[in-house]
Amino acid sequence: MSTKHLSTGSVAPPIVPGKIRLYSMRFCPYAQRIHLVLDAKKIPYDVVYINLTQKPEWFLEKNPFGKVPCIELEGGEVLYESLIIAEYLDEAYPQNKLCSLSPFAKAKDKLLIDRFNGVITNMYKLYAGTSVDRDLYNEALSSLEYFDRELVKRRTPFFGGTSPGMLDLMIWPWCERADIIRILRGDEFIISRERFLRLFEWRNAMKEDPAIKKSYLDAEIHSKYVRSRLAGIPQYDLLLNL
Amino acid sequence: MSTKHLSTGSVAPPIVPGKIRLYSMRFCPYAQRIHLVLDAKKIPYDVVYINLTQKPEWFLEKNPFGKVPCIELEGGEVLYESLIIAEYLDEAYPQNKLCSLSPFAKAKDKLLIDRFNGVITNMYKLYAGTSVDRDLYNEALSSLEYFDRELVKRRTPFFGGTSPGMLDLMIWPWCERADIIRILRGDEFIISRERFLRLFEWRNAMKEDPAIKKSYLDAEIHSKYVRSRLAGIPQYDLLLNL
Repeated sequence: MSTKHLSTGSVAPPIVPGKIRLYSMRFCPYAQRIHLVLDAKKIPYDVVYINLTQKPEWFLEKNPFGKVPCIELEGGEVLYESLIIAEYLDEAYPQNKLCSLSPFAKAKDKLLIDRFNGVITNMYKLYAGTSVDRDLYNEALSSLEYFDRELVKRRTPFFGGTSPGMLDLMIWPWCERADIIRILRGDEFIISRERFLRLFEWRNAMKEDPAIKKSYLDAEIHSKYVRSRLAGIPQYDLLLNL
Repeated sequence: MSTKHLSTGSVAPPIVPGKIRLYSMRFCPYAQRIHLVLDAKKIPYDVVYINLTQKPEWFLEKNPFGKVPCIELEGGEVLYESLIIAEYLDEAYPQNKLCSLSPFAKAKDKLLIDRFNGVITNMYKLYAGTSVDRDLYNEALSSLEYFDRELVKRRTPFFGGTSPGMLDLMIWPWCERADIIRILRGDEFIISRERFLRLFEWRNAMKEDPAIKKSYLDAEIHSKYVRSRLAGIPQYDLLLNL
């Protein structure tokens, strides 16, 4: 299911011919975006997991910012930044287009992905905060409401229509992790199903998608990782020790 | 050359058939990005300038975040966020493609546009800072060096080849304004021509481009606006009173 995260002192695994190399971290939501795109488009790839607190020297040489996700092509060229990689893959591999073919609809979806950054920022503050902040929680919920209304407006099971598109995949990693807040902060942080009826239906449909199943982990496991990170000793290899 | 910036209490000017409406502010570098794209692609547009401290009610209705740049299409649909608008225009209007047709080269240029954000952040700190910060200045210059080296590597007059492409246009507004720092902060902030040989040549070539000439203002005028903004009374209509 997963391999060890490589760290300082390791040797760079050779590129596999015919496959895109993805440098990832098993619990990084930004890296998961790229797993989702590669899986949804069925692009052959192999994954090398990186220990982000003790980054391999060879990785920093390839990618001076040392960030994941990062992809490496057969010629040795690298790209980083999840949204830039995701669009690159969708343009370079024509099968199963994830972005709308209408430039306007595509731009609108990019605005929504941008807007979702507000949800992400609040989510991190809610996990990491030492005090339980109701205002922040309410703010996060009202930004989610916008997405719920948008699904109602589109009248399709997914933002992308009858199957998950770019917007669905780009926001998914944080939706998969949404229950972490309840698990770490208590039952007063349950997200009410009545308030987000369409978004809950969407989440259930997303969970059944074969591409999403490939990287899916349940919220209990995500919480375990977040706890280890908050304690200052991130357990990147958590899945290997289960 | 310019019209008055509309403010609270004004009436929304009717859309002009056959033209894209651009909401702008005459001194906003992000808005200038869109002037540059529209001018480079020769897309017919009309401009409505917005007073950003007293935003018209009708503008907030069209565009709840109230940000410029914002474009409005004939059907009333709006888009905001400069990079999203710029890519939309390049996709929707096939003439004079600004992005590379190679998905990889396009992605690389997007990484450079992203990287240029570091230069932008430092520039703002340098204008607005009450103390003159040499470290910040040196940091800004070393991030610029990366762009100088990139031009040397590409061996073309512009980042986009023989004419300005998307990367050239997206970073131009801050390059047009670079001398503000010397004007506001003194001669010790002169950017040395020897250190940025290719970037200076590039800047001279950019200034001669017809699309760039359309929105070009010299650094003295930019400085006048920045001074007014720093004093808390931004003179949006500066050009009308010259």
